[in-house]
Amino acid sequence: MVKLDDSLDCKALSDEEAVELCGLLRGKMIETVAETGGHLASGLGAVELTVAVHRVFDLSKDRLVFDVGHQCYSHKLLTGRTGVFHTLRNFGGISGYPKPSESQTDAFIAGHASNAVSVALGMACSRTLREEDYHVLALLGDGAMTGGLAYEGLSNAGQSGEHMIVILNDNGMSISPNVGGLGRRLAHQRLKPQYLNFKKGYRKVMDATAVGRALYRFNHKVKTAIKDALLHCSMFEDMGFTYMGPVDGHNVKLLTRLLRYAKDEVSTPVLLHVRTVKGKGYPPAEAAPDKFHGVGPFEPATGAPKTPSKPGYSTVFGETMCRLALEESGLCAITAAMQAGTGLDRFARMYPERFFDVGIAEGHGVAMAAGMAKQGAKPVFAVYSSFLQRGYDMLLHDVAISGLPVIFGVDRAGLVGEDGETHHGIFDVGYLATVPGMTVLAPACFHELEDMLTWAVKHAAGPVAVRYPRGGEGTYRGGYDGAEWVTLRQGKDLTMVTYGATVDAVLTAAEMLEREKISATVVKLNNLTPTDWSGLCGLVGQNGRLLAAEECVLTGSVGQRLAAQLAMHGVLPRSVTLCNTGDRFITQGSVRELRKLCGLDADSIAEAARRAVARP
Amino acid sequence: MVKLDDSLDCKALSDEEAVELCGLLRGKMIETVAETGGHLASGLGAVELTVAVHRVFDLSKDRLVFDVGHQCYSHKLLTGRTGVFHTLRNFGGISGYPKPSESQTDAFIAGHASNAVSVALGMACSRTLREEDYHVLALLGDGAMTGGLAYEGLSNAGQSGEHMIVILNDNGMSISPNVGGLGRRLAHQRLKPQYLNFKKGYRKVMDATAVGRALYRFNHKVKTAIKDALLHCSMFEDMGFTYMGPVDGHNVKLLTRLLRYAKDEVSTPVLLHVRTVKGKGYPPAEAAPDKFHGVGPFEPATGAPKTPSKPGYSTVFGETMCRLALEESGLCAITAAMQAGTGLDRFARMYPERFFDVGIAEGHGVAMAAGMAKQGAKPVFAVYSSFLQRGYDMLLHDVAISGLPVIFGVDRAGLVGEDGETHHGIFDVGYLATVPGMTVLAPACFHELEDMLTWAVKHAAGPVAVRYPRGGEGTYRGGYDGAEWVTLRQGKDLTMVTYGATVDAVLTAAEMLEREKISATVVKLNNLTPTDWSGLCGLVGQNGRLLAAEECVLTGSVGQRLAAQLAMHGVLPRSVTLCNTGDRFITQGSVRELRKLCGLDADSIAEAARRAVARP
Repeated sequence: MVKLDDSLDCKALSDEEAVELCGLLRGKMIETVAETGGHLASGLGAVELTVAVHRVFDLSKDRLVFDVGHQCYSHKLLTGRTGVFHTLRNFGGISGYPKPSESQTDAFIAGHASNAVSVALGMACSRTLREEDYHVLALLGDGAMTGGLAYEGLSNAGQSGEHMIVILNDNGMSISPNVGGLGRRLAHQRLKPQYLNFKKGYRKVMDATAVGRALYRFNHKVKTAIKDALLHCSMFEDMGFTYMGPVDGHNVKLLTRLLRYAKDEVSTPVLLHVRTVKGKGYPPAEAAPDKFHGVGPFEPATGAPKTPSKPGYSTVFGETMCRLALEESGLCAITAAMQAGTGLDRFARMYPERFFDVGIAEGHGVAMAAGMAKQGAKPVFAVYSSFLQRGYDMLLHDVAISGLPVIFGVDRAGLVGEDGETHHGIFDVGYLATVPGMTVLAPACFHELEDMLTWAVKHAAGPVAVRYPRGGEGTYRGGYDGAEWVTLRQGKDLTMVTYGATVDAVLTAAEMLEREKISATVVKLNNLTPTDWSGLCGLVGQNGRLLAAEECVLTGSVGQRLAAQLAMHGVLPRSVTLCNTGDRFITQGSVRELRKLCGLDADSIAEAARRAVARP
Repeated sequence: MVKLDDSLDCKALSDEEAVELCGLLRGKMIETVAETGGHLASGLGAVELTVAVHRVFDLSKDRLVFDVGHQCYSHKLLTGRTGVFHTLRNFGGISGYPKPSESQTDAFIAGHASNAVSVALGMACSRTLREEDYHVLALLGDGAMTGGLAYEGLSNAGQSGEHMIVILNDNGMSISPNVGGLGRRLAHQRLKPQYLNFKKGYRKVMDATAVGRALYRFNHKVKTAIKDALLHCSMFEDMGFTYMGPVDGHNVKLLTRLLRYAKDEVSTPVLLHVRTVKGKGYPPAEAAPDKFHGVGPFEPATGAPKTPSKPGYSTVFGETMCRLALEESGLCAITAAMQAGTGLDRFARMYPERFFDVGIAEGHGVAMAAGMAKQGAKPVFAVYSSFLQRGYDMLLHDVAISGLPVIFGVDRAGLVGEDGETHHGIFDVGYLATVPGMTVLAPACFHELEDMLTWAVKHAAGPVAVRYPRGGEGTYRGGYDGAEWVTLRQGKDLTMVTYGATVDAVLTAAEMLEREKISATVVKLNNLTPTDWSGLCGLVGQNGRLLAAEECVLTGSVGQRLAAQLAMHGVLPRSVTLCNTGDRFITQGSVRELRKLCGLDADSIAEAARRAVARP
């Protein structure tokens, strides 16, 4: 009987035990994610694949590069992390993504899609250059294939001739349903029956071995049998890959054989096309794989969420888009495979002809929006802050040079919580400010998001980014009337400048300080860029102490830019305190924990203010 | 007889006159570029294509989106710009790229590759949404097809069903020889003979028209004849395109017929695959198309350059790489289709196994380099500043989260001159600073580039960008010993902080000021990030006046960050003067002219210093 613990050795398992192990892994994943929340459906689909990889490869030296890495939970359970698996995605616990600092068997960081083939190719080239001996694998989903980066990687990898194995885990859907030509091609491939003959062909060759033919002929036969039994896929083959597939991704025995073949018998790049079912083995997830892509805690028996989800900024964004669409016939919405995540489900249903899901292709989304705006439509691109990083060049080149009125709904701005380093939206404040002519607005409550989005759609003459956090609003309630900033409190000891999700903490801190006879002016920015710097400098000059608090890195922060303006305006502050995440990546944890870590909770801000005021 | 002037109407031309016009366009292009310099070989290859487009479409409303736009010169000559064509790429003159502010017939800005299909799709969607009536074309070279953005655009465009015509101008080479699977596929397609039958098939149908058959059957026949006569290309067809080609791109009559067919008879997206010869019609360019991709002034009779090219930073970079490769066996070089431009020709010849041209795929180049560095190789990615913008997300995600020692040779940093808005490297100072752990070094002469690159290769523990300008060194001579900054002059009236290509102007300004009894401290930064802010603040504090001069936008500039540090360090400057390009895009012109425009020449800097000192 197989036992799932950290002493487990996949290589020692029989085929039957491997099947048993898959069941145990599924049980553990469902049980844990039901408690912690996390990504479930992708990981359930990749169990057999992962077990097969671990049976064939030595991941302490062979490199398995995950793409995004939602699929990595069973990998973690097979590499010494069963004992700590219950800390999944918690502050201080193990990451929901591959993380080399956590284990040598995690080959590379993963969180943004479509990079795995590029990274794996780099690894394979390094191996060849340094004359080392290990295998390199990249595991990507069909969603990742909608990104141009994957195409660049595959194109280069195929031509390189480097031996590496790209596993395409094709579950027939990306986060939102698949987009573009390749998706259709893969779907078409699945209809062909030939691969069913594979097992028969393989067994015949195995029999031939038993009678002891010469090794050369054996190898040749295996190759021919496998090659003939499997499909040809001209796109991958033209790129230089040996294509194998599509094969049943839930047959651990078959996958093991194929991976062994790809490892030992092929010297070119290999593309192994595996067909899996998202959510496999857990009926609620199989029935609603999208719902179980990323989930909060749920009841394992039913799959029902433990706490009903509350409407968040994304919902308000989507509802506002639906309302604006009634009034603005040219309004359209673009998403990069994040229809549900950005709150656009209802818009997509109501206005299918004005809704564009471009796949995981943020750069294309930005350039396409620019083309739309150039010809008079009103595109709104809803995109997560950290994913818009991939459109930076297009923001500059396609949108800003022409000053086009493209609107960006920048969701998940600031700290996002349990997804950690790769997902925090802490760079957009800086990189959007470098884009000439870009207006950046930051709502601090739902109503302000409505107002700002409405203003942008109806009145913007150039590009506008409206950035808002993950989740729901806090306690602050306001509205947007076009003012670049508003004074929420007036005080004589220091000026606290903030915006967006940090407004609550700053107001709370100001109240705490008031009880200690420290009175603070609190300025809430609506515009992060451009901003009325002179007015702000004048305000800071009144009491001479600036404290800026915001959820972004220091470099490019509003606080940094405001501090520079003080110097440029000849205002000598008695003190400048910039509260932000610092110039670093921030780990996973609840947003509350991370705010504390970064000194962006009310207590920390109040303490920073006390120190500022106490300074002579 | 056809006359090339601004009253020319392409639609009125016979086939024979169109051929004559092509000759005139070539003559004008060669004659002008021989004087002004510019991009020649691509434009010569696209003459017939452009004339055919102008015969069939009305570009005052139909939208022709160029990809990069090197090919646009004959388009400019056909749209009212013959009279000003001699001002090509000059300050105040017409742009070498499409530019909507110059002419309504220039549909979109173009300078970075692979965006045209995305932009054109956006335009087509806007047309449909707004129920307008015009045609949309995208013209891209085979080089642009190596970029993932083109794949994203094609994939979405094919699936959209929008009627649009993508013309693939395939001259069998990108800026450097083509890379990746698609290049091979296209080459393979060219070998097939079927398209030779096209003309015959078409003529047969034309004859049939003459006898007056019913329109429906005529159309059907034309479609069938053309479809059967041309090749199928499964990749584009699977994406949803009607594929036509490959056809002779120098047969203006044939191209006219095909474009008319694509315009009037097809309602799906069309991909017209055209085969051209780069440099066509000008023997020196046909013989050495790479040399005539972008050229300085030359002798029209021979193609010989009027002024011999001097070694620039790129050459020094390449030579240093060759030298370092001897000492560092793991060193490898990556370029994104800019082998010659980044000075890597000799490296590529000497170390083919350590040289990687990834095509126009900067994001992939960064991620691949990260994979290499993770496994112990020493990758150096040589890339133009403005093109590295496309790798911003990978800098953060693939390189910086893991703190990998990837080295970036950031060429064309600062003002680049005649290529204008799309090509100036004025954003990297800002966006690189937002990348946690990134070291940014700025050599101010060849010797410093050698030293800094050597330091990075031998000692860097994390990512390092060495940024250097286009062209040659100035008069300053120094060296790099690891100091973050050096004081070049000591003065009592103000502190001037600068780096890289601006050092010469600042030193000259300091000398001018000295003659006026204004004495300036001049600090040359080696490190832009991280920098010893305390030391610099102390220095500025001594005389209380800061002037920072640098070729980048204000936001994210070193001057802005230093000004913020002054405020944070409690240093009240009597004045802060930030000389930079401002938060805007900068037009074309000689670097000398543009520096004057931006106030970054010695005279302007001296004048800014005088004003700063005069201020009370």
